Amino acid sequence: MKSEEFKFPIAATVYLIGGKWKCTILCHLFSQPQRPGELRRLISGISQKVLTEQLREMENDGVIERIVYPEIPPRVEYKLTEFGLSLDGVITAMCNWGVANLELITDARRRREESDK
Amino acid sequence: MKSEEFKFPIAATVYLIGGKWKCTILCHLFSQPQRPGELRRLISGISQKVLTEQLREMENDGVIERIVYPEIPPRVEYKLTEFGLSLDGVITAMCNWGVANLELITDARRRREESDK
Repeated sequence: MKSEEFKFPIAATVYLIGGKWKCTILCHLFSQPQRPGELRRLISGISQKVLTEQLREMENDGVIERIVYPEIPPRVEYKLTEFGLSLDGVITAMCNWGVANLELITDARRRREESDK
Repeated sequence: MKSEEFKFPIAATVYLIGGKWKCTILCHLFSQPQRPGELRRLISGISQKVLTEQLREMENDGVIERIVYPEIPPRVEYKLTEFGLSLDGVITAMCNWGVANLELITDARRRREESDK
């Protein structure tokens, strides 16, 4: 079956980096390459299983690459590919908007939690 | 229970506009206010139920507002609030990245679909 076309370019972006964790993982990789254990420590709240799945998916999508250093024991790091680096503008805009609107977003979260009770 | 703090600003942004549809809906509202039926037509693939849920959540979050015009029959439109309008940079960056990388993202989708078989 031929893959369906994306009807809107923004839907393609959401397809690739949507979900709860990918943007946060990418944000950390923009600072520097990271070992998986370090990502797990930085992003408390993510399970090992989910982190591994998200990293594998982004690796298959060509957004990040997995580097294995031939040391004993072998050291694994994830870094952004050139394609991943091109997400700079998206990640920066999302991060800046979060910083500028943290209070309003936190208020919205409280309202959602209240209405879920 | 006090709402948990967002550990990363980008996680706050994902919390507010994450999910499969919100960014696409917002993208259409940046063009102009839209009637719900028109949004449904533009974004083929979204069910009425999901569209209504997403619009209601964004309304509760203060991102969009619902305008009822006192006509017969009453006309309903959704438009961005000032808070919603501040997402301009985020939505534009996501949209531009999707345009620039549509081919690579479509390739990634084919690989995901192949590996799901």
